[in-house]
Amino acid sequence: MKTPLSDTLKRLVGQGVDAIDTPALVVDLDAMRRNLSRMADFARKHDIRWRPHAKMHKSSALAKLQMQAGAVGVCVQKTAEAEAMVAGGVYNVYISNEVIAPHKLARVAALAHAVAAENGQLAIAVDSMEGVTLLAQAMNDHRAAKGGAAAVIDVFVEIDVGQGRCGVTPGRAAVALAHEIRKHAALRFAGLQAYHGRAQHLRGAQERREAIAMVVQDVLYTRKLVEAEGIPVELITGAGTGSLVLEAASGAFGELQAGSFMFMDADYARNERDPAQPQFEHALFVKTQVISSGVQHAVCDAGHKSHAIDSGLPRVHALEGEAELEYFNGGDEHGILKPVAGSTRLPPIGRTLWLIPGHCDPTVNLHDAMVGVAGGLKAGKVERIIRVDARGALT
Amino acid sequence: MKTPLSDTLKRLVGQGVDAIDTPALVVDLDAMRRNLSRMADFARKHDIRWRPHAKMHKSSALAKLQMQAGAVGVCVQKTAEAEAMVAGGVYNVYISNEVIAPHKLARVAALAHAVAAENGQLAIAVDSMEGVTLLAQAMNDHRAAKGGAAAVIDVFVEIDVGQGRCGVTPGRAAVALAHEIRKHAALRFAGLQAYHGRAQHLRGAQERREAIAMVVQDVLYTRKLVEAEGIPVELITGAGTGSLVLEAASGAFGELQAGSFMFMDADYARNERDPAQPQFEHALFVKTQVISSGVQHAVCDAGHKSHAIDSGLPRVHALEGEAELEYFNGGDEHGILKPVAGSTRLPPIGRTLWLIPGHCDPTVNLHDAMVGVAGGLKAGKVERIIRVDARGALT
Repeated sequence: MKTPLSDTLKRLVGQGVDAIDTPALVVDLDAMRRNLSRMADFARKHDIRWRPHAKMHKSSALAKLQMQAGAVGVCVQKTAEAEAMVAGGVYNVYISNEVIAPHKLARVAALAHAVAAENGQLAIAVDSMEGVTLLAQAMNDHRAAKGGAAAVIDVFVEIDVGQGRCGVTPGRAAVALAHEIRKHAALRFAGLQAYHGRAQHLRGAQERREAIAMVVQDVLYTRKLVEAEGIPVELITGAGTGSLVLEAASGAFGELQAGSFMFMDADYARNERDPAQPQFEHALFVKTQVISSGVQHAVCDAGHKSHAIDSGLPRVHALEGEAELEYFNGGDEHGILKPVAGSTRLPPIGRTLWLIPGHCDPTVNLHDAMVGVAGGLKAGKVERIIRVDARGALT
Repeated sequence: MKTPLSDTLKRLVGQGVDAIDTPALVVDLDAMRRNLSRMADFARKHDIRWRPHAKMHKSSALAKLQMQAGAVGVCVQKTAEAEAMVAGGVYNVYISNEVIAPHKLARVAALAHAVAAENGQLAIAVDSMEGVTLLAQAMNDHRAAKGGAAAVIDVFVEIDVGQGRCGVTPGRAAVALAHEIRKHAALRFAGLQAYHGRAQHLRGAQERREAIAMVVQDVLYTRKLVEAEGIPVELITGAGTGSLVLEAASGAFGELQAGSFMFMDADYARNERDPAQPQFEHALFVKTQVISSGVQHAVCDAGHKSHAIDSGLPRVHALEGEAELEYFNGGDEHGILKPVAGSTRLPPIGRTLWLIPGHCDPTVNLHDAMVGVAGGLKAGKVERIIRVDARGALT
């Protein structure tokens, strides 16, 4: 269910950044648009489709912005996220994850029919025979109950290319699933899902190259086996912001799922950049205020209820002329700030600070809305409020 | 702004636990009520007030349940949390934190007058002269603008008793703040705020005893200095679930702020229990489902968008006859499950599992509602849906 945007938030539009209450999630729209344009250029140059992961921004408005820039649609991880996207007018959605519960699959089937009615397309991943059977059953049940035109859902077979999470072992198991999918008229075998999440965060560019080289071996081997059975593998989809240049150059992947490039975060910034990778900028910030000041530290009002710390603490983003500070864990509601080595400057009570979250996806998920600012964090104005449609969309 | 409860959630009431979609935050109401009753008994026995921290459950319904059981009111950390409590009919609220922004203090002043009209009382903490001056200004401005009866806000001086976060150094600085508070007719010096957050999670009972002994020294010393100026210190308030037996036995503290005892979490369960502490039970669970199964692991649909991992990963709560499993980090949307040493049993696709979150407070904050179950997790029924009124109440 959507949380209504508060009047306080709506009234912010047109006001200066100073008017934004803290803590708040703020998007530097200029930086975000540059990131988007860099990604679109990159995909064009490599003649590859891109389908950004909307689990990151969870916003149908940003999904549409991405599609206007050339994305073919979006990925999501959850049925409820797909529902939020479709409700927001995004009709090309891929649930790049396994769904097993029959009541959830009934929702998937309803969505597949809803987007088909809008000339859109729903896709989903599977990694088990049960998953295929239950999905086909749900599609048939929906048709039997509701009548109307039959929709077909695109089904990708997920192979585990090193993440050690979902996905079948590359090779024969994928062939068996492709055969199984093709037995059902309501399902279309669409290709292979191959995402290596951990490879995104390998720090060295060479390490990532080695990891993705093995991913590419796995997908080529699996594709070969599937195609040897006379089943075409139309598309191999995967990649994240950390490795996208490698999948794009591989010749094997036809679609990039990277999502974080839009906002970037402190964790991705710790990667050694591959020279071929577009220079994405930080575009997501938590605005915070100093509420207490000790002798050797200050305390701000943003703790880990306002930003996720699974991939490390946020970095303090010093604006021009401001003291460099380090953020230490202050618990759920507070951040502890200390000067970096060689400095003793501490911000006074009342001072505004900007944090770069450690990990953008779960940070966005903590907020009902993002405040979109144009003209910079120092003197910019609020241009729009971006609703996080799929915040808390867990099921 | 409140998120409306979905019809899907409302329809759950009266149904069996099997009907709860995953992932979902589930409260074992029987265990919760036993925890509440143990806390009420403990406070009665020690003749001490209790004011549980509602930053944990963020629910006005649970706050009222606590007050029915004997709590004098609740604590919160944020103005927006206080607003959510008051909107839900909880009129005795203490913002145990510093508020500095004038527009937030205007909201605090409005709340102070709103609860006074309901024969309630608002309280707040300060640790700076600016904080006192700005608060008094906001109270006066509110009165000047709105007229009506003048409300008085209770003001606690926060001292830093070892947490290294907010609070003045114990001693003279607190005396100066007490004097300053007493200059303003709209403020009442209510006593000292003294909370040692880190001490709650010291694993050994003896370590916690040593830490709280120093806390008690600090508060007694500060109280002595304040009272030497002829200013009575009516109340010293603090303590958490990890240390409450120590503050209760100290003779110095008059009020306990512990909140987690209601739900408990995996992190608090790692503490060596003080023999004097009531035996609180786990009452908060994430219901999850196995969606993928590998050779040596299974994957469930609950990652750290459904439970906070700042205090460690969740524990798998095996029901009677179920395999013991260990939860490993699978990212934002997945959990990886492996058998514990000596076992090879893995749960099949579709199986329901129950997780005990590492840290209850930020876990609750990820959910719009908690599903309250009576009769146990195996065969119980949904008794009520508990709205998380202050979810995302950051400002």
